[in-house]
Amino acid sequence: MLSYDVVVIGSGPAGENGAIQAALLGKKVALVEKEAVPGGASANTGTIPSKALRETALAIQQARSRDAHGIEVRVSGTVTVPELMGRRGLVTAREHSRIRSALNHAGVEMFRGIASFVDPHTIRVSVPDGGQQDLHAEVVLLATGTRPFHPPQYSIDNARVYDSDSILMLDRIPRSLAILGGGVAGCEYASIFAALGVKVAIIDSKDRLLPWLDAELSLAMQDSFDVLGITRHQVTRALKLERGERDVLVTLADESRLVAEKVLVAAGRIGNVEALNLANAGLKATDKGLLDVNSHYQTAVPHVYAAGDLVGFPGLASSSMEQGRVAMNHACGGNRKQKLPELLPVGIYTIPEISSVGESEEALKAKGRDYVIGRASLVENARANLVGEAVGFLKVLADPANGAILGVHCIGPHASDTVHLGQAVMALGGDLRYFAETVFNYPTLQEAYKYAAFDALDRIRDRGGNVTPIDRAAAK
Amino acid sequence: MLSYDVVVIGSGPAGENGAIQAALLGKKVALVEKEAVPGGASANTGTIPSKALRETALAIQQARSRDAHGIEVRVSGTVTVPELMGRRGLVTAREHSRIRSALNHAGVEMFRGIASFVDPHTIRVSVPDGGQQDLHAEVVLLATGTRPFHPPQYSIDNARVYDSDSILMLDRIPRSLAILGGGVAGCEYASIFAALGVKVAIIDSKDRLLPWLDAELSLAMQDSFDVLGITRHQVTRALKLERGERDVLVTLADESRLVAEKVLVAAGRIGNVEALNLANAGLKATDKGLLDVNSHYQTAVPHVYAAGDLVGFPGLASSSMEQGRVAMNHACGGNRKQKLPELLPVGIYTIPEISSVGESEEALKAKGRDYVIGRASLVENARANLVGEAVGFLKVLADPANGAILGVHCIGPHASDTVHLGQAVMALGGDLRYFAETVFNYPTLQEAYKYAAFDALDRIRDRGGNVTPIDRAAAK
Repeated sequence: MLSYDVVVIGSGPAGENGAIQAALLGKKVALVEKEAVPGGASANTGTIPSKALRETALAIQQARSRDAHGIEVRVSGTVTVPELMGRRGLVTAREHSRIRSALNHAGVEMFRGIASFVDPHTIRVSVPDGGQQDLHAEVVLLATGTRPFHPPQYSIDNARVYDSDSILMLDRIPRSLAILGGGVAGCEYASIFAALGVKVAIIDSKDRLLPWLDAELSLAMQDSFDVLGITRHQVTRALKLERGERDVLVTLADESRLVAEKVLVAAGRIGNVEALNLANAGLKATDKGLLDVNSHYQTAVPHVYAAGDLVGFPGLASSSMEQGRVAMNHACGGNRKQKLPELLPVGIYTIPEISSVGESEEALKAKGRDYVIGRASLVENARANLVGEAVGFLKVLADPANGAILGVHCIGPHASDTVHLGQAVMALGGDLRYFAETVFNYPTLQEAYKYAAFDALDRIRDRGGNVTPIDRAAAK
Repeated sequence: MLSYDVVVIGSGPAGENGAIQAALLGKKVALVEKEAVPGGASANTGTIPSKALRETALAIQQARSRDAHGIEVRVSGTVTVPELMGRRGLVTAREHSRIRSALNHAGVEMFRGIASFVDPHTIRVSVPDGGQQDLHAEVVLLATGTRPFHPPQYSIDNARVYDSDSILMLDRIPRSLAILGGGVAGCEYASIFAALGVKVAIIDSKDRLLPWLDAELSLAMQDSFDVLGITRHQVTRALKLERGERDVLVTLADESRLVAEKVLVAAGRIGNVEALNLANAGLKATDKGLLDVNSHYQTAVPHVYAAGDLVGFPGLASSSMEQGRVAMNHACGGNRKQKLPELLPVGIYTIPEISSVGESEEALKAKGRDYVIGRASLVENARANLVGEAVGFLKVLADPANGAILGVHCIGPHASDTVHLGQAVMALGGDLRYFAETVFNYPTLQEAYKYAAFDALDRIRDRGGNVTPIDRAAAK
């Protein structure tokens, strides 16, 4: 039996980065992947493919918005969704080769097959032709990820009714699409297909889409959905799907009905744990197929770690990479990254893009913490106008006593990059003065921070605060 | 005679922000603008209009690069350059209204006319119909900006030979364009017109374009010019322009000749000082029409300040705004912004975009300062690939002893926003560890910082440095 310090199962962002981290710490590492290609849902079915479609949709919308005469942008009526993803194939292929080369470089041994526990320290790798091989593991990292959850009441046939993976295989752009579920995937696809000219309806059980976001962001996203012509059916759910010759009749719990050419079931994701034989390791998944872990990403069995989508929220590639690294630093005696940084940004690739870091207004209120708001419109931002995406705003929440940044919320072009600046200023102890006094390139999107800071400083003055950040600076 | 604490001449970025700063400090402020619209070269002739054309060119290039089937992007053969600027008119109009409203809000009084000194404290405002009005000024801020310099040997006729303002009025896209001068404007236009399909030649006296940039950036820009099919004629200059019926024959100092349908003379800029009667204030401009100032932006006459393009390098809207604010803080007893921050980013809107902050490798070598390089390719970056602009790199220069960031240099999509993050980490005392340990949204452009930091940390280890930033962190 081959013997390893660490066996990693799954080669998505958590598995790849966990395996490399362990190998960099001098460990003998095996990585088991059941697919022919590495990268998991991030590279192959979820993140990258949907973002590729999004960039095409966004470019079409930007071109219309920029309204340059003499430039024609036309979408052919017979185009398939995979065709619209353009260089998705190239991007995915680049990811595959980047991951393989990073794993090779670090000296990680790769095994192809389905992994399962024989006992807590033995992983069996089974290959489709019936062969199998057992690996001894001092430490195991489970990073098998998730797949779209299929609620039994909606039969997903990939002809009329799709999940968030199969929707990307559509052979043409439908005229209309009903989306069941208003989570991140539902919202991203709603805006992407609407920007491609599809009549979209979104059906969600909550009274606000993405209710865990700062409410102003979430409401702004809903407004932008209205502008895109998306119909929102909220505080309800789809009771019944009736397939016709050319469409689906959807009956909602509030008894309203709607007809759509295609239906997307976006009902969350479920962990890939069935093949693992977790019981042989003394482990049990939740009813969503997820594993509970502590802050070191250890499961109930201390030498078995889990990271990535498999441990639940936030289920983002960005966090999953770090979870894998943190887990393996802990397991292998590394001297850094013992836990995730406190500031985790969230990026949502709707049109327009949304991103947040730090506290929301609602969270600050719940904690009884005083704050001031500084807002800058991106409708007025010169670069956003030039790009053809003059929508949204940047909102900075700050402590009125000393100007410390408490949260940054952005909806608009490249929001997921824009928050990184606020995140750095928060992490490094800067405050509103940093934004107010810095020279920003012009025209750029991020100069919005300066105007948001001016706005917040004005509000501090208006409140009669005689200890404004500016006075403090002068007093030094 | 009307009497003011401060009279500002010119309403571009330096004048606008200087006037508002003085008004916010409680001063009575007049602003004189000779044009019907505010904003100067930034809003009206230079920055915004050329960036609008750039965005269209870039979008065409990105669409081709993304290569989405079923999406057709066509440029009509009869399109004019102003048409290609798309929403430029809207962006400019928004800038006009934003500036007017900001000046009004601050209580700045606006005068239309040509300003000149009667004596050091008296500004005469002359209007085209012959009327005039004298304003008494305790403090004067000169922010009259610059215009394209017209070397006498090239007669600019706006039919075959243009300057960097009039080129934007072309009634159609030429087949070929010879650009005389490889400064920022020459390089920006070279890449923009090449991306629009024009056969471009650039003629410059130096052996490297933009030689003040970090050499690796400047060489990468030259490589990208080669990819765009731009012909570079370097260490030479145009001796003679001979106009034909359909083109211009350009003879260079090295005796080579080339034919181009149109010629752009991009020979730098010259200050707008002629109308000012500087002698009446006891002042004299340089032979480039510029004014010398100290670090408070005071001229040789202490109550007369100058800011913006009029004081020379860097001549960027971003810096000019801050110069105006710094000057008026000093003049009006403000308690902040007594001088410009040390970290001034430079943004160059070529295709691809370029931006830098902090030290170049050459500057560090000249100072005898040790450094390590961390590079991350943007060719491999997932977001850059999705956007259809997978070119360039991010380079971080760091102190090998402690990981402190010394300089950040980027060429690639949204480079001018990307450097803001490095600038913040430098200004707030962060180091390579910040980038290495931060969770970045994925896919984003700025996650490149993490890979650049990993690269730099590897090099520190490879050098045998046993005090790497990571060890220091562990030792705490």
